[in-house]
Amino acid sequence: MSDPMRASGAKEFTPGWVGAAAAAEPPSAPGGARPAISFAYGVPDPALFPAEALAAAGKDALLQHGDRALQYGAVLGLPQLIAGLLARLRDREGLDLAPGQCLITAGSSQAIGLVAHALIAPGDAVLLETPAWPGVINALRRYQARAIPVPMDQEGLDPAALEQTLARLQAEGVRPKLLYTVPTYQNPTGITMTAGRRAAVLALARRYDLLILEDDAYRDIAFDAPPPPSLLALDVDGRVLRTGTYSKILAAGLRLGWLLGPAAAISRISAVKDDGGTSPFASYVTATFAEAGALEAHIALLVNAYREKRDAMLRALERAFPPGAQWTRPAGGFFIWVTLPEGLDSGALLPRARAAGVDFLPGRACFPDPADGARYIRLAFSQGTPDEIEDGIARLAGVIAAAR
Amino acid sequence: MSDPMRASGAKEFTPGWVGAAAAAEPPSAPGGARPAISFAYGVPDPALFPAEALAAAGKDALLQHGDRALQYGAVLGLPQLIAGLLARLRDREGLDLAPGQCLITAGSSQAIGLVAHALIAPGDAVLLETPAWPGVINALRRYQARAIPVPMDQEGLDPAALEQTLARLQAEGVRPKLLYTVPTYQNPTGITMTAGRRAAVLALARRYDLLILEDDAYRDIAFDAPPPPSLLALDVDGRVLRTGTYSKILAAGLRLGWLLGPAAAISRISAVKDDGGTSPFASYVTATFAEAGALEAHIALLVNAYREKRDAMLRALERAFPPGAQWTRPAGGFFIWVTLPEGLDSGALLPRARAAGVDFLPGRACFPDPADGARYIRLAFSQGTPDEIEDGIARLAGVIAAAR
Repeated sequence: MSDPMRASGAKEFTPGWVGAAAAAEPPSAPGGARPAISFAYGVPDPALFPAEALAAAGKDALLQHGDRALQYGAVLGLPQLIAGLLARLRDREGLDLAPGQCLITAGSSQAIGLVAHALIAPGDAVLLETPAWPGVINALRRYQARAIPVPMDQEGLDPAALEQTLARLQAEGVRPKLLYTVPTYQNPTGITMTAGRRAAVLALARRYDLLILEDDAYRDIAFDAPPPPSLLALDVDGRVLRTGTYSKILAAGLRLGWLLGPAAAISRISAVKDDGGTSPFASYVTATFAEAGALEAHIALLVNAYREKRDAMLRALERAFPPGAQWTRPAGGFFIWVTLPEGLDSGALLPRARAAGVDFLPGRACFPDPADGARYIRLAFSQGTPDEIEDGIARLAGVIAAAR
Repeated sequence: MSDPMRASGAKEFTPGWVGAAAAAEPPSAPGGARPAISFAYGVPDPALFPAEALAAAGKDALLQHGDRALQYGAVLGLPQLIAGLLARLRDREGLDLAPGQCLITAGSSQAIGLVAHALIAPGDAVLLETPAWPGVINALRRYQARAIPVPMDQEGLDPAALEQTLARLQAEGVRPKLLYTVPTYQNPTGITMTAGRRAAVLALARRYDLLILEDDAYRDIAFDAPPPPSLLALDVDGRVLRTGTYSKILAAGLRLGWLLGPAAAISRISAVKDDGGTSPFASYVTATFAEAGALEAHIALLVNAYREKRDAMLRALERAFPPGAQWTRPAGGFFIWVTLPEGLDSGALLPRARAAGVDFLPGRACFPDPADGARYIRLAFSQGTPDEIEDGIARLAGVIAAAR
């Protein structure tokens, strides 16, 4: 039997995307038991989903607006949801955006995919803040982009390295399509780009006429002071697109996120969205929940819960991890980034960690060139109780001690 | 100010997709009143949405499975929803498919977009049963495919014309990527491809090693006898992909559809799905609704309601339309296709029809070359009551009479 998919010349793609990683079950511990805890996935804690309140909002939305919530909707998204989102951005960040500057998407993963789809042709150069979220590395592979890593340090993306890279590319006659960055509570490191760095990155973007894709999925999970203004808020000439998501502040299963930016860009990017518009049903439920005032209270609850988890992980790392190991102290988000003592390879540790009932993301997954990430580990503290987190870190410390 | 989207060389796309058409409001009648009725859009009647039952299903789903319904899900879709869908296909059509042969999508529009994304490179030839749904014409433009029309008649796609086209392309060294067809209750004509034609089309596909994309959105809206077996059901060597949707049998606002086909093809196509998996929330609500047995009863109710609408439109056409006009008598679905008396141009009639409070889709929108469609009108009978439909047809007949 012939293979018509092959015969008709289907393009080849690297499979795997955020959903694949998130949905994958961590492998079983010996005896078939699930690991005591997984630090591998940046998924929200299901114990924190407001299921009852969403059920009530869903009932209200369907009984009051069923004729619209169950019908086809606008390509840009539900106007009420957009209005609520923009009002929130105005109140909290002083951002003044028009409805045409917002596209509702199926999570920020779709927003990133749409930007790539609209902008990237095979072989195009894309600047990638590195280490990076594996989902965006996969997306760039899928669109056959040439990912050019730009390093970061404890203050975020390094403007000197960015300038050097831009100058080198300009000399080679290469024009990068965009810069992808997660400036706030970065995935995978938890690092926040300083206000000074943000200004410097934007100044370089203006000088080199560069488009920036700012992934802002974690902004609202802020444990201490509010984060610095977003790149979009600092942008003066329409060169920043910013994604956000309800996945981290409400529920990932709704598949609702957004893309903000210049109206012309939003219009062009929405033209490649081929799903008939993001679910009016999920949008009405979310808008109803938010309009009832529940969203801010829920975010406050989440921030407290995730802060406790972060604190538990930091405490456990201090207590249990060996000298020579280093880690970040995130002011928000879901992640801590660990640098192992010299000579250790996180990929080699993973099977032993799993055997000990704990799971993590090896750093290699966060670099376009996997050879670069051997010493690193991404730990997500978003799942599990503080006690489970402390237990998991103790197990992981045991695995590391045994490996040295 | 520079335009970074332009500067960075964004690809150009034709905007517009099913959602755009569905969401567009028909223009106002004189005096700002809405038209009495629109026959322009193939959208379900919102009066038929089971809002209360879905609210109850939503509550059950969230209270019993909130930890999963609100979490990231599998890329292929919610296993329960897939299992229910495959059981239904087994019961009703004798189709025996494995879970890996089904991808849950955000409506069948996303399924079609994913197939195009995975398969079509700019300039590729795609065979298009014509007249065609404007959404697929736009999708092919967006992926820069070369749409090659293959005509149909009252028995559906014409196998002789298909063979001629395939032979001509083969002689030119052109290998079409796929054939797009809506064999059952076609959009826009309402015509159903006969069983004999289906066998002939499949035989040609085998001979020319052609992939078929079967859009099967309307199969369950069957007014009389069940429709002939689908091309997928008749396929013997894995060359048919079939799309379906909950939009017509439950609610478009859920944005839930599916793609069926060989497991290898489904896997490859799912790799270009960049939205983190179709909404677990909407999927749980739908699976809960269907598991309670409500889906079959609801479809039976829909079939009765849409049959009444079809009958009302056919009666009104008989009564009011002029000699020389012809129209199809669909055995299912949402559409009647009208051929106007010679010399009339449906595009020219549209403004006058709107002024008279009635709206339709001009035939030009259904042809890759708009010059081909001037004499045709697509009438959707899915919205409005039988009385409103009869009134709308009478108004349209008046406009046609005045134009002759």
